[in-house]
Amino acid sequence: MKENGRKTYTYNKSMELFEKAATLIPGGIYGHMSPTAMVPGEYPYYTAEANGCRYKDIDGNEFIDYMCAYGPMVLGYGNPVIDGAAEAQRKMADTTNHPGPVMVELAEKLVDMVPIADWAFFAKNGGDMTTYATLAARAHTNRKKVITVRGHYHGVAPWCTSYGHGGVTAEDRQNTLQVEWNDLDGFRQMAKENRGEIAAFIAMPYHHITFGRQELPAEGYWTGVEKICREEEIVLILDDVRAGFRLNLGGSNEYFGFKPDLICFSKAVGNGYPISACVGKKELMTAASKVFFTGSFWMSAVPMAAALATLEELENTEAVKKMEKSGQLLIDGLVEIGQRHGLEINPSGPPAIPFIHFCDDPSLYLNQLFCSEVTKRGSFFHPHHNWFLSVAHDEIDIKETLNHAEEAMKAVKSALDGKSPCLAV
Amino acid sequence: MKENGRKTYTYNKSMELFEKAATLIPGGIYGHMSPTAMVPGEYPYYTAEANGCRYKDIDGNEFIDYMCAYGPMVLGYGNPVIDGAAEAQRKMADTTNHPGPVMVELAEKLVDMVPIADWAFFAKNGGDMTTYATLAARAHTNRKKVITVRGHYHGVAPWCTSYGHGGVTAEDRQNTLQVEWNDLDGFRQMAKENRGEIAAFIAMPYHHITFGRQELPAEGYWTGVEKICREEEIVLILDDVRAGFRLNLGGSNEYFGFKPDLICFSKAVGNGYPISACVGKKELMTAASKVFFTGSFWMSAVPMAAALATLEELENTEAVKKMEKSGQLLIDGLVEIGQRHGLEINPSGPPAIPFIHFCDDPSLYLNQLFCSEVTKRGSFFHPHHNWFLSVAHDEIDIKETLNHAEEAMKAVKSALDGKSPCLAV
Repeated sequence: MKENGRKTYTYNKSMELFEKAATLIPGGIYGHMSPTAMVPGEYPYYTAEANGCRYKDIDGNEFIDYMCAYGPMVLGYGNPVIDGAAEAQRKMADTTNHPGPVMVELAEKLVDMVPIADWAFFAKNGGDMTTYATLAARAHTNRKKVITVRGHYHGVAPWCTSYGHGGVTAEDRQNTLQVEWNDLDGFRQMAKENRGEIAAFIAMPYHHITFGRQELPAEGYWTGVEKICREEEIVLILDDVRAGFRLNLGGSNEYFGFKPDLICFSKAVGNGYPISACVGKKELMTAASKVFFTGSFWMSAVPMAAALATLEELENTEAVKKMEKSGQLLIDGLVEIGQRHGLEINPSGPPAIPFIHFCDDPSLYLNQLFCSEVTKRGSFFHPHHNWFLSVAHDEIDIKETLNHAEEAMKAVKSALDGKSPCLAV
Repeated sequence: MKENGRKTYTYNKSMELFEKAATLIPGGIYGHMSPTAMVPGEYPYYTAEANGCRYKDIDGNEFIDYMCAYGPMVLGYGNPVIDGAAEAQRKMADTTNHPGPVMVELAEKLVDMVPIADWAFFAKNGGDMTTYATLAARAHTNRKKVITVRGHYHGVAPWCTSYGHGGVTAEDRQNTLQVEWNDLDGFRQMAKENRGEIAAFIAMPYHHITFGRQELPAEGYWTGVEKICREEEIVLILDDVRAGFRLNLGGSNEYFGFKPDLICFSKAVGNGYPISACVGKKELMTAASKVFFTGSFWMSAVPMAAALATLEELENTEAVKKMEKSGQLLIDGLVEIGQRHGLEINPSGPPAIPFIHFCDDPSLYLNQLFCSEVTKRGSFFHPHHNWFLSVAHDEIDIKETLNHAEEAMKAVKSALDGKSPCLAV
């Protein structure tokens, strides 16, 4: 369908399939992909095909994608180099009784790329690795408690799940403490009050929580955290599952200037192939080997071959530089469009993992309106969750998105119909 | 190399690569695939290529495989039907912002195939699903405690990991109770003593623990457990991760004659593609939807397409019947070979998931010796863990293995050198 010379995006097939799904699957689509995490009815529900930085849903709507599968896609969907490496490995072997030799190559590659890494361990989910890292820290320190930052997402295991979700007991979280982000004094105090009992501090490299503004570490925060961890013999764990390989190929700590003991990776490490990794300092290796941790598909060779190819390709394409540049182009363009239409847009976070808020929009109503309008013009913008750039986003794609944004902004203005854009509650 | 007209299996390349791996990866190879779980130096360490029921390691040794990747391989390595379905899906899309429509098809297929299933949920590991099922049970009952069977393996999450492994605290297991296998009175007593506090009972369909004999459920055990669960309003969870789709395509409970509320599947469901599933009764669906449970790759379409094709192919090939027949042929042959050489071999478990013990061999010395000798002749036998048959094992493969076993038995007899085979400690 066309309307005023442009395609009209409808989600009839998506809605129909979702209604059926809801009778067969709890929630229909669950977790971070749940339609209720966005604005139900305003976004695609099912992917039909994906290529480069674009995909089509089952209604035939096409999107330039700024979620990148919530992070995993970093080199483009259907990347021939990565899929080729995976396919070559599959023709040999994937899930068998043993790892393939590629497991050793991949460990070696990570140890080469990541300055703090003396060793690597592999699993399937980011959450596998955050649990593994805390177990290794406990085994290393012979202590029980883990300090986390309020709102940081480390997966769905009961010890860390961020919300009061079904089935989680107080006992599950008995050894989990929480401090606020960027509160160095609070962390120092908590470490002191629990001296000799804190096994680990685990945090994302910066504050990127759902619904919220992204907050970078305050000057001196991470070096301060690192110093306290050294003094109190607390294992410092970086959860780089979401940001990893978009800010610095050596770990996001290199971007922010500190040295954790363990780093958890997943998402982008295999360009969408299911794999996660924990890397660590040699001092932690013995403790790490005492943790009994395994899964049926963790040693599978195909995702490891894909990850090895992904890491090489990230180096070869100057990926970090390109994603930063594309993200900056996007953000600068959005801010400029907002200014021109009298709506202040505040970007937050690093350009490769950007997010925006509108001025005086605590309910995110304007964000929801704007992102929906951009999405239905062909660029997928999540209204509540940070976005992701990829190497597959070229300047021409960003410019096309800025055209979608320009039109969307006009629609927002029209919807506001002269009412104040400042909708503070 | 040939010795007495047969190939001599050496593991020089495996050992060399493992030595390097041990400097880069905690344990070198960890978890269930660790060489220390077998007899170090007597088994292959790295897979080079795999096809059908056979694979080659990096030293060029070839094996008929009786571990099937510890279960996932059920239709043969590199099965063209499954890999073709996966590849067709990959050309469309895999890990994106949304599931593919195949997710709904797969849920529908499982609901059709599994009598107790009104809905299905997907993740990556078997352990994801056992944790999810207990959380759903807690959300449903508003109770905290979970009864498990001593020695049953439900994954590596701290609440259930079977061993005193690194990093696990007493608090992690505070709500986990244990009964003995086949002890219906013990279960009844525990349920009574904790009346109103038990959310779930979780167990494998039969007792198949590492190092031990496989023990089938006693007459009336499962129906008795089911009755107590109904009376006490305890959610009955079947962990069918290991046995699932080898005994009955409707769940191993159909093989043993009972009706759980939730069933956890993984391993064989995707013929090696990484996927797990939990299916459940409709009464549990609301509670299940309250559990926040997700992972970066859980909605990926390729493993779902592989699983859909696997389930269809299992039906089309009369897989269960064939695996039972092949397993029986193997076990009967081994028992007969033992008898002929004066060594009593006791098989245990269902034929499709068989295991053997020698008479009076509590240290498993004879098992280790025999399995090593069979393995170095070309049939991979694990000395400590139940084995798996697959649809790819034909009669000709089993017969070749029985030839390996015959020669291996002679080597065992020769090694014993007239000493009593009964090595009871």
